[in-house]
Amino acid sequence: MTPAPNELLDFAHRLADVAGATTRPLFRTALEVTRKRLDVVDAIAIVTEADHAAEAAMRALIRARYPEHGILGEEQGHENPEAELTWVLDPIDGTKAFVTGFPTWGTLIALRDWHSPILGIMDQPFTGERFVGTGEAAFLGDRRLATRACERLGAAVLSTTALDMFGAGAARAAFDALWARCGLRRLGGDCYAYAMLAHGFIDLVVEADLAPWDIQALIPIIEGAGGVVTTWDGGPADAGGQVIAAGDARAHAAALKILASAAGQGETR
Amino acid sequence: MTPAPNELLDFAHRLADVAGATTRPLFRTALEVTRKRLDVVDAIAIVTEADHAAEAAMRALIRARYPEHGILGEEQGHENPEAELTWVLDPIDGTKAFVTGFPTWGTLIALRDWHSPILGIMDQPFTGERFVGTGEAAFLGDRRLATRACERLGAAVLSTTALDMFGAGAARAAFDALWARCGLRRLGGDCYAYAMLAHGFIDLVVEADLAPWDIQALIPIIEGAGGVVTTWDGGPADAGGQVIAAGDARAHAAALKILASAAGQGETR
Repeated sequence: MTPAPNELLDFAHRLADVAGATTRPLFRTALEVTRKRLDVVDAIAIVTEADHAAEAAMRALIRARYPEHGILGEEQGHENPEAELTWVLDPIDGTKAFVTGFPTWGTLIALRDWHSPILGIMDQPFTGERFVGTGEAAFLGDRRLATRACERLGAAVLSTTALDMFGAGAARAAFDALWARCGLRRLGGDCYAYAMLAHGFIDLVVEADLAPWDIQALIPIIEGAGGVVTTWDGGPADAGGQVIAAGDARAHAAALKILASAAGQGETR
Repeated sequence: MTPAPNELLDFAHRLADVAGATTRPLFRTALEVTRKRLDVVDAIAIVTEADHAAEAAMRALIRARYPEHGILGEEQGHENPEAELTWVLDPIDGTKAFVTGFPTWGTLIALRDWHSPILGIMDQPFTGERFVGTGEAAFLGDRRLATRACERLGAAVLSTTALDMFGAGAARAAFDALWARCGLRRLGGDCYAYAMLAHGFIDLVVEADLAPWDIQALIPIIEGAGGVVTTWDGGPADAGGQVIAAGDARAHAAALKILASAAGQGETR
């Protein structure tokens, strides 16, 4: 029997709590202890350790409570791949932000059925912000989130984490063409940019080379806030790859016209 | 008579408090009120308004308490340019971060004498982080800040806000050569990147086309934490332009070897 949605949502919050309890003490603080001997290789090792530990803690909770559920995570593979419901985990999305002390990384937790993600959490333990979506609605704490209206690209804020994800071919050219059309452009951001799109401060997030666990938790948040998330050819985004999120369907349609010609090109996944 | 340093530092905290009281309510919240009609032009207008209001509030406090001091700010020009002590203000450094809801903008407040900045504050009112430096020491709240060791570029984390600040000529080529040598690179960040350098999580911040108010508050913070800030040719950085900040003098020297050939090229200020 499928658990009631509220039970699953409460449990997802428990997963975010346990992940935060693992990652939060390792953000900035732990790095400082060994700072005088630390270089970037050590710093990345600490993030990787935090990532592993948080995923292991979440997996242990899931196995104990819902042993029949599947689990897919960046660090520790796919358990119960035949399950009807699967938890999709990325304990630290935004490794560079974590390493450099920026509070713009997040813990991503999705629950999906055969069809698509049905709930998602993006948790930022340093700022204490937890974005939650069910596809029907999205919240930051008690506050209901809503994307903003954006009729045309010239009035749009476009965000993307880094340009190297597009490669050097048709995908990059299509992205550059979109970039040139938008009113304001920003780089950096990882999952935090999608959260700000759901919150109504960014109109478009366009990325490529995403893994399933990079995007699945964000889909119910963005859709719950009134936005749209698809691949560059307009298909479901839950497998990752080339992804476009928009707060307004009109901006989404305008951007797809530019990106569609490069859909599927330059993808490595 | 010059006021005692502690009196000036206490007053600088009051300026940061009053700036935060002005900017904080306009970050995210005010934008939401009109969200359904807001586009990027409106959003920038709101930031500009917050910027103006915060600078006006700080200037009023300074005029009342230290009428003999100079004031230099982005929004409202230079008052008392002949003064021995001058407050240098940038109420919102990181306009794009502010507009897009990212908590990585900051209020920059410096006090300088004829020679150089003697105290600086970088305040982030949303996260509640206030970085304070006197050139001799630097603090985040009660915590003493220290930059980290970094002997070689291959182990360095390099951060820069955006590549378009370098233009398309020799400065960009020099920056690209440095970028290729560093162990980890990140984009975005504005003043928050310099704060994280002082905190020991970033090794190099390299930028160009900075205004004096973009960098002066950060100099006493970085130097107080043990770091180095200069122009690309190794001179004082307080006039802005091409700036390099490093946590370790060895990384600074290694980076200058690459950047020096392009010093002064492509500058518009």
